[in-house]
Amino acid sequence: METPSNHHYRWDGGNDARATDIESSVDGSSVAMSLDRNGSDLSELREPLVRKRTMNTTSQIAIIGANVCPIESLDYEIVENDMFKQDWRSRQKNQIYQYVFLKWFLALLIGLMTGLVGFFNNMAVENIAGFKLLLTSDLMLKHRYILAFFTYAGCNMVLAAAAAAICAYIAPAAAGSGIPEVKAYLNGVDAYSILAPSTLLVKIFGSILGVSAGFVLGKEGPMVHTGACIANLLGQGGSRKYHLTWRGLRYFKNDRDRRDLITCGSAAGVAAAFRAPVGGVLFALEEAASWWRSALLWRTFFTTAVVAVVLRGLIEFCRSGKCGLFGKGGLIMFDVSESVASYSTPDLIAILVLGVIGGVFGSLFNFLVDKVLRTYSIINERGAPFKILLTIIISLLTSCCSFGLPWLAHCTKCPENSVEQCPTVGRSGNYKNFQCPPGYYNGLASLFFNTNDDAIRNLFSAGTQNEFHMSSLFIFFTAIYFLGIITYGIAVPSGLFIPVILAGATYGRIVGTILGSITDLHPGLFALLGAASFLGGTMRMTVSVCVILLELTNDLLMLPLVMLVLLISKTIADSFNKGVYDQIVIMKGLPYMEAHAEPYMRNLVAGDVVSGPLISFSGVERVGNIVHALRLTGHNGFPVVDEPPLSDSPELVGLVLRSHLLVLLNGKKFTKDRVRLPPQKVLAGFSPSDFGKSGLGKGLKLEDLEITDEEMEMYVDMHSIVNTSPYTVVETMSLAKAQVLFRALGLRHLCVVPKTPGRPPIVGILTRHDFMPEHIIGLLPHLKASKKAVSMTM
Amino acid sequence: METPSNHHYRWDGGNDARATDIESSVDGSSVAMSLDRNGSDLSELREPLVRKRTMNTTSQIAIIGANVCPIESLDYEIVENDMFKQDWRSRQKNQIYQYVFLKWFLALLIGLMTGLVGFFNNMAVENIAGFKLLLTSDLMLKHRYILAFFTYAGCNMVLAAAAAAICAYIAPAAAGSGIPEVKAYLNGVDAYSILAPSTLLVKIFGSILGVSAGFVLGKEGPMVHTGACIANLLGQGGSRKYHLTWRGLRYFKNDRDRRDLITCGSAAGVAAAFRAPVGGVLFALEEAASWWRSALLWRTFFTTAVVAVVLRGLIEFCRSGKCGLFGKGGLIMFDVSESVASYSTPDLIAILVLGVIGGVFGSLFNFLVDKVLRTYSIINERGAPFKILLTIIISLLTSCCSFGLPWLAHCTKCPENSVEQCPTVGRSGNYKNFQCPPGYYNGLASLFFNTNDDAIRNLFSAGTQNEFHMSSLFIFFTAIYFLGIITYGIAVPSGLFIPVILAGATYGRIVGTILGSITDLHPGLFALLGAASFLGGTMRMTVSVCVILLELTNDLLMLPLVMLVLLISKTIADSFNKGVYDQIVIMKGLPYMEAHAEPYMRNLVAGDVVSGPLISFSGVERVGNIVHALRLTGHNGFPVVDEPPLSDSPELVGLVLRSHLLVLLNGKKFTKDRVRLPPQKVLAGFSPSDFGKSGLGKGLKLEDLEITDEEMEMYVDMHSIVNTSPYTVVETMSLAKAQVLFRALGLRHLCVVPKTPGRPPIVGILTRHDFMPEHIIGLLPHLKASKKAVSMTM
Repeated sequence: METPSNHHYRWDGGNDARATDIESSVDGSSVAMSLDRNGSDLSELREPLVRKRTMNTTSQIAIIGANVCPIESLDYEIVENDMFKQDWRSRQKNQIYQYVFLKWFLALLIGLMTGLVGFFNNMAVENIAGFKLLLTSDLMLKHRYILAFFTYAGCNMVLAAAAAAICAYIAPAAAGSGIPEVKAYLNGVDAYSILAPSTLLVKIFGSILGVSAGFVLGKEGPMVHTGACIANLLGQGGSRKYHLTWRGLRYFKNDRDRRDLITCGSAAGVAAAFRAPVGGVLFALEEAASWWRSALLWRTFFTTAVVAVVLRGLIEFCRSGKCGLFGKGGLIMFDVSESVASYSTPDLIAILVLGVIGGVFGSLFNFLVDKVLRTYSIINERGAPFKILLTIIISLLTSCCSFGLPWLAHCTKCPENSVEQCPTVGRSGNYKNFQCPPGYYNGLASLFFNTNDDAIRNLFSAGTQNEFHMSSLFIFFTAIYFLGIITYGIAVPSGLFIPVILAGATYGRIVGTILGSITDLHPGLFALLGAASFLGGTMRMTVSVCVILLELTNDLLMLPLVMLVLLISKTIADSFNKGVYDQIVIMKGLPYMEAHAEPYMRNLVAGDVVSGPLISFSGVERVGNIVHALRLTGHNGFPVVDEPPLSDSPELVGLVLRSHLLVLLNGKKFTKDRVRLPPQKVLAGFSPSDFGKSGLGKGLKLEDLEITDEEMEMYVDMHSIVNTSPYTVVETMSLAKAQVLFRALGLRHLCVVPKTPGRPPIVGILTRHDFMPEHIIGLLPHLKASKKAVSMTM
Repeated sequence: METPSNHHYRWDGGNDARATDIESSVDGSSVAMSLDRNGSDLSELREPLVRKRTMNTTSQIAIIGANVCPIESLDYEIVENDMFKQDWRSRQKNQIYQYVFLKWFLALLIGLMTGLVGFFNNMAVENIAGFKLLLTSDLMLKHRYILAFFTYAGCNMVLAAAAAAICAYIAPAAAGSGIPEVKAYLNGVDAYSILAPSTLLVKIFGSILGVSAGFVLGKEGPMVHTGACIANLLGQGGSRKYHLTWRGLRYFKNDRDRRDLITCGSAAGVAAAFRAPVGGVLFALEEAASWWRSALLWRTFFTTAVVAVVLRGLIEFCRSGKCGLFGKGGLIMFDVSESVASYSTPDLIAILVLGVIGGVFGSLFNFLVDKVLRTYSIINERGAPFKILLTIIISLLTSCCSFGLPWLAHCTKCPENSVEQCPTVGRSGNYKNFQCPPGYYNGLASLFFNTNDDAIRNLFSAGTQNEFHMSSLFIFFTAIYFLGIITYGIAVPSGLFIPVILAGATYGRIVGTILGSITDLHPGLFALLGAASFLGGTMRMTVSVCVILLELTNDLLMLPLVMLVLLISKTIADSFNKGVYDQIVIMKGLPYMEAHAEPYMRNLVAGDVVSGPLISFSGVERVGNIVHALRLTGHNGFPVVDEPPLSDSPELVGLVLRSHLLVLLNGKKFTKDRVRLPPQKVLAGFSPSDFGKSGLGKGLKLEDLEITDEEMEMYVDMHSIVNTSPYTVVETMSLAKAQVLFRALGLRHLCVVPKTPGRPPIVGILTRHDFMPEHIIGLLPHLKASKKAVSMTM
């Protein structure tokens, strides 16, 4: 249990010491490719122009190339574009081709693997849950109801306990949806173990077990997390722990590439879960990613296209019955396209009503989920057995509801001219017979005593106007709404999409049934609109939900209506609270950085929030000082300031990263005296990948260094590993604008320089934590009054 | 003819003096709301804390609020978030509610108006072109072929001449697609009159006339431009020239809001043209916009939803025959959903082939369009009559092809069991009879002698396997491909989507027909894939084209195939040249700023490219100096540097904009001596909207100022209008990183500050033009060798 639980919520809103920022793409440590050039091609590139740094008093042309910075923020772009440089040697050209090829190959691999996992998940669930339902139905047919209940509840409990056990003991980070964690990662917060290989395994199998156990939860969030884990595993070149590494992937050992891959992975996850490739891309764009480039659009798109092709191929393969109980569905999960949608003015009013209901229920759902999570966290914090116990209790409760509540419904006679089989016995299908005699069906059982997917399919189904009694729908809605709330938070991988779609579809169908006489739309389409409204009310996504629903149901003509209902419900819900994923991010204490600045930041300047004494190094620093500073602080970046005699006057050389310093110290290129060395000499013996970013917690640590007392007194020249072009702001810069800069460029450190001469060349360094409301309010207590305002956004 | 022609291409690639950057959102001039606060609420907000600027030697808390900058980059966000500030007076709260309400109301209006225009365009075209075709068909039936030809060609010529005439004489900027211009505007280039009301009118009617004239061009590009024009008109508060102004819209007189509106407008344009709301959003995201915020996603989405509802309502209204010849189509333009798509391995190979063909033909198309445009520009530059003449020649050529080429095809017997009418006489439909006897049809005429929309519909149609002879398709493809190339560039609003879809669908159908025996897909679906491949090869869009095609054809199951074919064709075409819109942007000399830095920028520092002598003002400056500087230079921003006695040592106060300076000078708040005034005094008499951005060329001009010689010797305090938080980079900052900062934040000016003390506090100002390859290569001729590399991107 060395890994922190997903459910150790921190209410103080403080920052998790274990959660560190990932390197920024622009200001980061992606030294691999550029160092390579410095190491070997330096002579060709720099020699004709290299000179001692001159001031800008000479002509424009003379100093070109004098200030090439060895650690460049734009490695990623450079790698792509330098291909055209005439003076690159073929060895490096090959590396670039390798890089570009691998980039696409990885996208392909992510798509393939996520598609396979998605299919495997689907197949396993349908087989396990199907087998369970078949067994129970069999007993029901023989009127052995009590045995049936025990079989049903027992199966559920065993599956639930298994899911909770692997989750609690192997990878606590695998519990929950995973979307908040992926979102935080893509925002720059690399919380411990959320993308580790163990998390991946538990997520895959925990999700299968959890969904099969009949919980009111879905596989969508876990699939997104799974996709991200797969991408991370590939991006960091495999897992050293499990001896699965591949040297070819060393190019991707930097934050930017890894972030891109994980964006692709999350898109692939949605594509695999909903069989919705375009929806996946839009989900990654709208909900998951914090930074977006158009090149990424294309790569994400490719990944999800691969997922779609894989899924389609496998589904075709299964159509002939080779996959057990799986194999009936096509690529469209809930096809409603046979119905003709023609709507009129009363429908628009109904849509308004649905939007309002969705907004209100959605924000209430978020509020309750928040409360329940806080309660559960107290239980979950007590240890793994309590987690399992909680899961079993919820499982029993769910089983009781699923098996008990259908008894409240009367048996209904099968409709005469039904195109579907009625009643159906066994696994899937509409018109479940449950306890009813032949020729009759139990409407509630068609919803409860089914997999969640089938229940949604039944709610969306056309041509079944009067299948469900109003009372059945009310009971189902109430049960699912509250089961959904209390299920999220147990130690099982659990997605929120399916419960939300289920509950939304139910009240949509209620509204549709009420309006049945005055509307042209059939209740199945109302169910679709209801699902959209509830999704809008909880998730607060717009375009992505819209496209996902479109791809789920294959009904393009409903699009304008779905759009409107989503907009209404989102608007209403936004006036109450935040989206459910944002809430969870806040609750977990992840320092998520919003794209917009808070209003009070406008009245502050950058200098106001810079805190603590600044530790800076000289360009050629005593080893002892560096080791002492590294030991004393947890800072990940240090400014380097040259003072006479190294320069004419004190000047900021740049920023050096802790991880690079550790690598440099480990190489022991020390000198007796304080002298500058040529970079070739300092970097000799290092390979570019030494400076690459390793997986979290896997890089060189201070404790790994073995430095003798004698070496402590020696000097090391760190000019070669300094980022000489850090982004800077003047201390009087508006904090709001500094925040925009920090966030837009995805920085990790932002140097604050003084406005007036005669002071040290750097005032401080702003990091992510300096922009957090908690930090600022801590510094400036009089802002506390407006804390409520702080936590609200429009 | 005071407006520059769209076709005055500048081959030198230089910057158009008339094209000025729009203000950036972050560093811009959106002074309206914030000034309001400074004017009236200043006492409440600042008085308790205001003091003389102190250095950061006092406690953190003491200096809060001392550095409120009156011109804040983030007004937009502030306006939204300040709603929660307790100390805002109700008057300002009302303003904020007004602002938020208006924002959504404008989105609604844009959607409504664009929807109406789109519908009107559609209806007018179908009626005019339909009437023309009816007339001609009638004569054909009577075997009066020569008269028919003259009628047909005459109608076309009159329509074409009318389109060219209004375009050439009223608004030359309305010629062409308009997408490149909108793209450039959203990148920050506000070229003269591209979004003016006259352009809007000409674009609407020119597009109707042009499409009716039977040219091989579409209405999609013009619709995007129309949407953007509508948005601009609303955003600048109506047109002063046409006496259509509304004071309520004064809030939107800043660049950020206007840019957001125009993004919405371009999305609405696509939504109206293709009846594809989600495609519209994605088009705006992928192709049009250079900056994107998730809030914008939502607003764009709302706009396109409104368009879809409007279109749907009007189409329902027309179904009963109230709109003349218009009224047969549904919301789906080319519905292919009745066909079942099940594909196998040979189809995937066919897709590969189609992708390759699309990539090759697409890049060739772009190359040829480029050459033709360069040739036409020589003709077009001679004046309006030459433009009209060129248009008439192309019109005659098109008429000859449309009327002449069908004679090459033999008459074919109508299929026995056709569900469609065969042959059709008159306007629309498949199986045109043309010169054939009853019971026979002319395949080529079904394509040529039709509107472009109907031709596409016929190509996409299912159940018509053998309708078109291979020879017919070959002839049609060749004709359309070359007519498409020579048509773009005439002085008529002309979209590229339709010609590209037409040509692509044709070769798709050819491939489909060849593979007919070994594939399960029918030729109509191959036509769809062909269209996708050609779109990918020319436009280089991926997700948006995919979704647009999906919404055009309502066939979700083809999605993975469309994705793959797009990816292949885009990859192949990208290795030859740029996308067609990017080419046109470059050709027009618009200083478009790419998101990525060029490779050579990595070897330069910001100080290297700062050019020219820097003109800076003192915080309290002599009026004469300001007027002289404004007259002498065209700069839009000037640094303000306080020197003793205004400050202890020379320090950079900030940046002042030309437009604000002109307003301030016009207010004549001058003093005899060099003294600082309280901001209340300086700004008294100004209303916030005085500083708002007017439409291009409509703001206060230097010539409008009447300043006496006496006043010239007086002083003006400009501290109140200085942006005290400009973004800065140190002169030794890598140019590549400065470019990323500039572009990511949408800046207009970037201050370059010195690295070492003892020099003036500002070295120079970087503007958009300083990042252009032409400028840099001009400064650094030795880079010329790699100019070829410069113009290429991966």
